[in-house]
Amino acid sequence: MLRLYYTPHTCALASHIALEQAGAAYEAVRVDFAQSEQRSPEYRAINPKARVPALVTERGVLTETPAILAFVCQSHPEAKLAPLGDPFAFAQVQAFNSYLCSTVHVAHAHRMRGRRWADDPAAIAAMQRKVPQSVGECFALIEREFLAGPWVMGETYTICDPYLFTLAQWLEADGVDLPKLPRVLEHRARMAEDPVVRRVIAQELA
Amino acid sequence: MLRLYYTPHTCALASHIALEQAGAAYEAVRVDFAQSEQRSPEYRAINPKARVPALVTERGVLTETPAILAFVCQSHPEAKLAPLGDPFAFAQVQAFNSYLCSTVHVAHAHRMRGRRWADDPAAIAAMQRKVPQSVGECFALIEREFLAGPWVMGETYTICDPYLFTLAQWLEADGVDLPKLPRVLEHRARMAEDPVVRRVIAQELA
Repeated sequence: MLRLYYTPHTCALASHIALEQAGAAYEAVRVDFAQSEQRSPEYRAINPKARVPALVTERGVLTETPAILAFVCQSHPEAKLAPLGDPFAFAQVQAFNSYLCSTVHVAHAHRMRGRRWADDPAAIAAMQRKVPQSVGECFALIEREFLAGPWVMGETYTICDPYLFTLAQWLEADGVDLPKLPRVLEHRARMAEDPVVRRVIAQELA
Repeated sequence: MLRLYYTPHTCALASHIALEQAGAAYEAVRVDFAQSEQRSPEYRAINPKARVPALVTERGVLTETPAILAFVCQSHPEAKLAPLGDPFAFAQVQAFNSYLCSTVHVAHAHRMRGRRWADDPAAIAAMQRKVPQSVGECFALIEREFLAGPWVMGETYTICDPYLFTLAQWLEADGVDLPKLPRVLEHRARMAEDPVVRRVIAQELA
């Protein structure tokens, strides 16, 4: 039995959706950020990075959304959540997810987590002011170059889709100019109607 | 024939080493950051992110170091650069590389690329001041938790090793307190003695 540690409104949602779509045997355990539970000794023993998601398996703990997503599809090949037999196509999936992780999520994080990169309150405020632009530029690139449509990789649904959907949840709060992103918004709306996605979100917010 | 676009002293070194170690048929093409060549229309047609590395294949262009590294080992399985038949072990490799990409490299980037996340010069200076601490904390976690030794994943060399080596090149310039990282430094020194690594670095700097 896998165990996913998550917090609502975080990128852990992508892994949560993928586990459900894969038909994995798992339980989801909430980590309470409001109580700083992620920094408790108990949670650090699971994930020394003090972040979510973390996926506990019988062989050890996995972290980092791109790695967890790839693990879920490789360990549940029957769910066909990635082009596993094609190194180039699989690398395209990985490249997209790596961009979300290392550039898009990072741009977003400068709104709430600026103290990771500066101590001066004025600097943290300056970071926050740029988030609409920096996140907006990331999504503009996705809109123009990387979202093949109807799914991220084209006709076939992959683990890129729940991850893009998850980060697109934050567009309004990040102050991004939404009318410039019709294809991203259409993708987000279509994902939001999926019964599995609805069930996972309801479970996280319950 | 693969074509790797790289710039010396960047994270493209990791992909360059892996291609060489895999025995791949490739050529390396230098992108001149001093001339802002990465922002030229010609280069943006290859990689609209205007960054390195980019790997041109006969089926299209791949970007993002973790994705390129996984592609190199999956498309050259005989080189045994990752535990390809074991989804959990492969995910551990991916988790390590994703951490380097999305957290370690990002912390480092606040020294030279602060304008990605703020416009105010004082804020950019504040980011630079925190780099020794933020990069240092990342490497302290690697030293303590993730570098199994002698290689990152333990007894077996993987695509984690050239990537860690590449980012460890920047420790001095980032102002990190080196004596706290004996295992990272030992790994870096051992990598630096590898004939393939020496050849790739010499080629990049030629």
